[in-house]
Amino acid sequence: SRSINLAVIPGDGIGQEVVAEGLKVLSAALPQDVKLETKEYDFGARRYHATGETLTDADLDELKRHDAILLGAIGDPGVPSGVLERGFLLKLRFAFDHHVNLRPSKLLPGVATPLAGQPEIDFVVVREGTEGPYTGNGGTIRKGTPHEVATEVSVNTAFGVERVVRDAFARAQARPRKKLTLVHKNNVLTFAGHLWTSVFDKVAEEYPEVTTEYIHVDAATIYLVTQPERFDVIVTDNLFGDIITDLAAAVSGGIGVAASGNINPSGEFPSMFEPVHGSAPDIAGQGKADPSATVLSVALLLRHLGHDAEAVRIEDAVSADLAERGDLPARSTSQIGDALAARVAG
Amino acid sequence: SRSINLAVIPGDGIGQEVVAEGLKVLSAALPQDVKLETKEYDFGARRYHATGETLTDADLDELKRHDAILLGAIGDPGVPSGVLERGFLLKLRFAFDHHVNLRPSKLLPGVATPLAGQPEIDFVVVREGTEGPYTGNGGTIRKGTPHEVATEVSVNTAFGVERVVRDAFARAQARPRKKLTLVHKNNVLTFAGHLWTSVFDKVAEEYPEVTTEYIHVDAATIYLVTQPERFDVIVTDNLFGDIITDLAAAVSGGIGVAASGNINPSGEFPSMFEPVHGSAPDIAGQGKADPSATVLSVALLLRHLGHDAEAVRIEDAVSADLAERGDLPARSTSQIGDALAARVAG
Ligand SMILES: CC(C)[C@H](C(=O)O)[C@@H](O)C(=O)O
Ligand SMILES: CC(C)[C@H](C(=O)O)[C@@H](O)C(=O)O
Repeated sequence: SRSINLAVIPGDGIGQEVVAEGLKVLSAALPQDVKLETKEYDFGARRYHATGETLTDADLDELKRHDAILLGAIGDPGVPSGVLERGFLLKLRFAFDHHVNLRPSKLLPGVATPLAGQPEIDFVVVREGTEGPYTGNGGTIRKGTPHEVATEVSVNTAFGVERVVRDAFARAQARPRKKLTLVHKNNVLTFAGHLWTSVFDKVAEEYPEVTTEYIHVDAATIYLVTQPERFDVIVTDNLFGDIITDLAAAVSGGIGVAASGNINPSGEFPSMFEPVHGSAPDIAGQGKADPSATVLSVALLLRHLGHDAEAVRIEDAVSADLAERGDLPARSTSQIGDALAARVAG
Repeated sequence: SRSINLAVIPGDGIGQEVVAEGLKVLSAALPQDVKLETKEYDFGARRYHATGETLTDADLDELKRHDAILLGAIGDPGVPSGVLERGFLLKLRFAFDHHVNLRPSKLLPGVATPLAGQPEIDFVVVREGTEGPYTGNGGTIRKGTPHEVATEVSVNTAFGVERVVRDAFARAQARPRKKLTLVHKNNVLTFAGHLWTSVFDKVAEEYPEVTTEYIHVDAATIYLVTQPERFDVIVTDNLFGDIITDLAAAVSGGIGVAASGNINPSGEFPSMFEPVHGSAPDIAGQGKADPSATVLSVALLLRHLGHDAEAVRIEDAVSADLAERGDLPARSTSQIGDALAARVAG
């Protein structure tokens, strides 16, 4: 489409700073004839402290009218753990049916990794986003007593598993190596494991060119540090995806460069793009945050909206910038944003 | 006690080979006046293929009469995923109330790690062993149809959480650094997360000398590769413990040296000691397996039974052997076992 109507949620802490740079680069990347309209929303800890609200039905109606959402990061130490996660982040993912959580990991030249020997890392995790242990099913009895019992229910449906598995197969088919790894724990979580495995095997029959493998989540963490080059596309459950994508980010350059898309593939609801990192209150307001993860999330956003060439330009700009970093004095958040915008425009 | 009545379960694949070396080193380590009696059991894939049995009530009665259990590894590709895990390994952990799963991680000098810069790694994970998503609670409806729903229920009790948290605090208190990290995901799994966090905070009051911290499981995987030296003792849930201990093993020398104890601290039931690795059918019977993880599990077993001096001798022998490996030609499983036995005896 020749216009983008974007909801912008800077959020808290460094979210504010990195989103400003993301928008700068987005504007620089867009062709003249694509009209960008943005509307900013103040969700997050500030709104919560001021009003007690996290995300109302009216908010969802507003957000729904946009083509996509760009989020910085939300949360601050003054908000109890879980309130903004359940009340905002997860509520949005569930309300907008963001069932494909896309998290690419690519170790770019010149970028430091904690792994020895600079391995080749270039894979993408397709994490399920609306089921598993994230549904909020469960509860507590006898709270605060010596007899408290707390349960968490992982809910998995054939419908929910199949759509994300299909998405992952299609992505694997479109990549040169055409390999898809299912990560689960089907030897212990046998009910959910059977569902994931049987759906995976069934869809695999439609993709004879895609090489498939199954790896338990515990073993996957070993491979992510000993042979990350073995992965091309990974499909996995919501919780396992949460865990392995943080590890994947760590080995492929850190959360300073890890981008993420919470995608509703049908387009029925706007998709949401955000860096994997949090609001980092300890460095907020100091211009120390690296906006690269947000800028790469903007690239995912553009690709999702069909602006592939612009997405590639942004990714190339980030690659080039990272490759030269070793030689440069440290720069501020906005200096990095300026440099990226200049590369993208130029 | 001046006698050890040990149940030995070599299991499948390399389990057979590594257990033989574990017993060799155990015999070499024990003082003359400690009588070692062993009885071997054929649990695992062989028994399952022959009889369809995994672990019967009669088996449990037999095993119960021993002071401890040494296990190699069980499983082979001919057994469907989950059958031996649920039918033997987990059944035994639950039947014998192995609620403390102890997994030390120490990067020994001379041992290769996938991490750059040879970091200092010396921590122990106390993983809960009888609750969480491992209980087998859950089920499937409409199996095999497009409307299949599969659930997995994580069950957490104040009783179960408190006893493992107490065990971990006591271990932290006994170590020089006196630091304990709780790993959970209390911002999403808010029911179980609240229980773990509140019990942890309550018990912490009794251990004013222990420094405590809380880390989400996803972030913990980042720290395990970027700053593993920050950890001293970690306490965590059954599933998170499964995942992070494989990663911990990978960064601290690999599963060739990762030992584990499934402990019933009260002594009501025998505890079980095993290497973290599996039966590795691909290299079975070739004398290629490293018995060090099993030998280190024997050290944990001895310490559990009060033979601390012998445990230390074994650990020192493994350290010394590993430190010299770089200079030696490759050795077979039994050659490594012989070398360790000689060091321990001499
Ligand atoms: C903040 C939290 C709810 C979230 C998650 O667990 O999904 C985060 O860790 C992530 O990976 O996006
Ligand atoms: C084999 C499996 C049941 C087991 C577990 O998940 O606990 C293993 O991975 C382990 O860590 O001991």
